[in-house]
Amino acid sequence: MGSITADDRLAAALTAIQDEVDSAFDAFLPVPQDTRARLIEAMRHAVIGGGKRVRPLLVVATAELFGVSRTAAVNAGCAVEAIHCYSLIHDDLPCMDDDDLRHGKPTVHKVFDEATAVLAGDSLHALAFDILTQPDTSNDPFVRAELVATLARASGHAGMAGGQMMDMMADTVAYDLQQVTRLQQLKTGALLAASVEMGAILGRIPAEGRAPLRAYARDIGLAFQIADDLLDVEGDEDAAGKALRKDEAQGKATFVTLMGTEPSREQARMLVEQAVRHLSGYGSEADILRSLARFIVERDR
Amino acid sequence: MGSITADDRLAAALTAIQDEVDSAFDAFLPVPQDTRARLIEAMRHAVIGGGKRVRPLLVVATAELFGVSRTAAVNAGCAVEAIHCYSLIHDDLPCMDDDDLRHGKPTVHKVFDEATAVLAGDSLHALAFDILTQPDTSNDPFVRAELVATLARASGHAGMAGGQMMDMMADTVAYDLQQVTRLQQLKTGALLAASVEMGAILGRIPAEGRAPLRAYARDIGLAFQIADDLLDVEGDEDAAGKALRKDEAQGKATFVTLMGTEPSREQARMLVEQAVRHLSGYGSEADILRSLARFIVERDR
Repeated sequence: MGSITADDRLAAALTAIQDEVDSAFDAFLPVPQDTRARLIEAMRHAVIGGGKRVRPLLVVATAELFGVSRTAAVNAGCAVEAIHCYSLIHDDLPCMDDDDLRHGKPTVHKVFDEATAVLAGDSLHALAFDILTQPDTSNDPFVRAELVATLARASGHAGMAGGQMMDMMADTVAYDLQQVTRLQQLKTGALLAASVEMGAILGRIPAEGRAPLRAYARDIGLAFQIADDLLDVEGDEDAAGKALRKDEAQGKATFVTLMGTEPSREQARMLVEQAVRHLSGYGSEADILRSLARFIVERDR
Repeated sequence: MGSITADDRLAAALTAIQDEVDSAFDAFLPVPQDTRARLIEAMRHAVIGGGKRVRPLLVVATAELFGVSRTAAVNAGCAVEAIHCYSLIHDDLPCMDDDDLRHGKPTVHKVFDEATAVLAGDSLHALAFDILTQPDTSNDPFVRAELVATLARASGHAGMAGGQMMDMMADTVAYDLQQVTRLQQLKTGALLAASVEMGAILGRIPAEGRAPLRAYARDIGLAFQIADDLLDVEGDEDAAGKALRKDEAQGKATFVTLMGTEPSREQARMLVEQAVRHLSGYGSEADILRSLARFIVERDR
């Protein structure tokens, strides 16, 4: 018998969270017996049975450091994932990126229609905050309110949506490396950082005690985006389950176009090692977070 | 000198809340010195300088019954208004109602573009929950969490967005009066009811003490929608500041098509009188809520 490697443990953790997130959304979204059924079916199409669930795993793996109940952590993970999935639905719309494929499935506006896709995104957005305020997520209202504050700020104009706007402006403005970094910190980094932060909030870790986790999250956020840029250039569309080679086609400044392929890969690896070092205060209980950091730059989708 | 009438007092209250909401959004949304500026300008276009502000006035007038601070109530009112305005931006999109005019101004996707409009709506959605979790809104985390729970539920698939989906299905399903009532309770009623509920939450009124206010809100919600249906048939487009005669063109079942014009008007009046009766336990401090109920069916926009 071979020994269980860190990769095996991460694979098991990803499979577990994928199942738990699917089950939780299935329970959150029963299909009603009225004409709202179409909306709920569209929401289910977007949140059940797809995606790596990196954000929920970040919440759960961070919360585990502090002995938080699994139900609470999975709920909070579902809230972040609901925000992530709503943003994918809206980004895929014809007026945005006009994508037909997501997680290897047709996008929501392809299966349903554009109006339903807009509304399904909006409804998942509201569901995220609905979930966070359920007593199951935390019986402490202070924790519930702080979870909401963190997720709302990370997803709005000062976070993810702001980064998406900057990205849309990349057609007309030639960003330098500093600006691309800022753009990506908002567009992708804010929600990844919020995932880690929410794990710590569930663990009732005061803000000043979260510094190493925040540093970890910041580094993996950038590494994640560099890996995404590399994937866009080098990846396999079937494995990725979505359209690639889009940055180049649009002439967009990315880490890869600004730094080159090999320096970008090197930078991502360096960020991951730095992220892992930020966790040196934790023992083996943080191994999933360490493995996840490495997975983020080695994934093929 | 004439005496000050209830109408005068309502007009003054509406003017006051319009100014306060405009000022608050101006403070919430400073325009940044980067390419997110376009997004924040689009958000400002949607939330500053337009709309009757019925929902914020409902929050503030209810909160006033219980001596809540004005800042707290205006903040909560802005949160509801941010949700209302995001829904208007998305409803006006070409893939939804395809409207060019809102509050007498060009719609967001006309002034900016569709992608920016989607994103501005999403960002206002997040801003609503951001505002509700600010300590300015309440220093009690239980109140903040309950405000979020109420607004999230009222705006998602079990509330406003669900009603909007039912409305979109009206092309293919012939609704009866009961179904139209249910549709409107979700599409319009849920957010109006949440406004009143949030005023009571700020006032720390326990759920069981909110029954008369909930009954008031339910009645004015339906009256509001009947008035909207009547406005669509009889209103003046210039006064309304938006396109009218759309229900008829789309062959949609509404209170007016199902009940007829005069019976609808009579029903709206009856609902308003009933709403006012639910406030009989309150004295003159509830006069604004009473006047607002009457205004809702008499407005021309």
